[in-house]
Amino acid sequence: MLTLYHCVSARSFRPLWMLEELRLPYELRMLPFPPRAAARDYLAVNPLGTVPALLDGGLRMTESAAICQYLAARGTPGVRGAPGTHGALDVAAGDPAFGEYLNWLHFGEASLTFPQTLVLRYGRFEPEERRQPQVAEDYRRWFLARLRGVDAVVARQEHLCAQRFTAADVSVGYALMLAELIGLEPEFSEPVRAYWQRLQQREGYRRAMDAQERAAIEQGVSPLPATVTGTQA
Amino acid sequence: MLTLYHCVSARSFRPLWMLEELRLPYELRMLPFPPRAAARDYLAVNPLGTVPALLDGGLRMTESAAICQYLAARGTPGVRGAPGTHGALDVAAGDPAFGEYLNWLHFGEASLTFPQTLVLRYGRFEPEERRQPQVAEDYRRWFLARLRGVDAVVARQEHLCAQRFTAADVSVGYALMLAELIGLEPEFSEPVRAYWQRLQQREGYRRAMDAQERAAIEQGVSPLPATVTGTQA
Repeated sequence: MLTLYHCVSARSFRPLWMLEELRLPYELRMLPFPPRAAARDYLAVNPLGTVPALLDGGLRMTESAAICQYLAARGTPGVRGAPGTHGALDVAAGDPAFGEYLNWLHFGEASLTFPQTLVLRYGRFEPEERRQPQVAEDYRRWFLARLRGVDAVVARQEHLCAQRFTAADVSVGYALMLAELIGLEPEFSEPVRAYWQRLQQREGYRRAMDAQERAAIEQGVSPLPATVTGTQA
Repeated sequence: MLTLYHCVSARSFRPLWMLEELRLPYELRMLPFPPRAAARDYLAVNPLGTVPALLDGGLRMTESAAICQYLAARGTPGVRGAPGTHGALDVAAGDPAFGEYLNWLHFGEASLTFPQTLVLRYGRFEPEERRQPQVAEDYRRWFLARLRGVDAVVARQEHLCAQRFTAADVSVGYALMLAELIGLEPEFSEPVRAYWQRLQQREGYRRAMDAQERAAIEQGVSPLPATVTGTQA
């Protein structure tokens, strides 16, 4: 059984989206944000206090883009996992698109998400006296400059690689979701905006949105993202 | 033929280290730092202006940890690549250590390297009036807190996963190399310090250090890392 620890619309949305795309059975445990401060028990699951944490038997993973690749590969032939999915969202090591696939998986987090966390932290989450508008602006520009790498590709093709929807689209797609939450969407190019709209129309994406809202209400956690409630990071 | 674009001791050291560990033939093109400003021609290779860029036939990759996994897998049976290496640094999708392997590959960059770039940028590279000592200190602490995740593992085993040296050790190892360059090594725990020393004793690591120095001198680029020369990012 897979267990995912998740905060509404945080990075842990990536594995949630993957789980719904793959229709894998899982248990979703919602945490208030930031769990490090608001759910101290969670440190027993992940001493770093970060989300996500994915538990799969004795395995614990904490890096959201790595979990995307793991879940995608988990269904491939020869790998334990769910019958029926068979690596539909994976790109195997022998595939000509493998290098691009790995590059996008990493790019979505390291190049497109981390800079946004600085925009959030120093523009919104920190107490007034610790805010740093210059840093928030530096990394807003940084994010938008890196986003041109996505623009160049989705202007000419429907998905990032392998001519189909893969875990790489989930990795980058979450960065676009976060950008919309923090108000950067008006700066998307037309191709990026259209790509993001295509992703949001996927059933797997919608099921993941529904799943987190339902679980938040059932488990007594606010169903609003921290980007909206403005909770301190 | 593989071509790697590299700045001395930048993130692109990861793929260089991998190439030397795997003894693959490659061409090394040295760039002054930061290439975006100091080597405008490079934008034709990588419009983002970042290093690394790895070219492998028609494939271009830009994410250093993704390149580590790619190069490791490139030698596995069924995948094109160098005979003799056969995935010695890879962990395949069917291996029980696959999830941990992916997690460390991402952790090395997103959780351990990105925060250090903030310490560098706002503590050293930016012109005096744009420095932000608070931000540099916030991310120094952030890095050291995340490093505890490494400590917990290398205190009880020689390598990060799969009970052998893999591309995951290269991903995390580079973060330790950068930490030493920016003066954070005195804060390493004893197990982390010992792990980092083990990594530096590897022949592949030493060959990579020699290769970048030799190539820098031959190609008329300073052989000192930007962290030492203090060039602006």
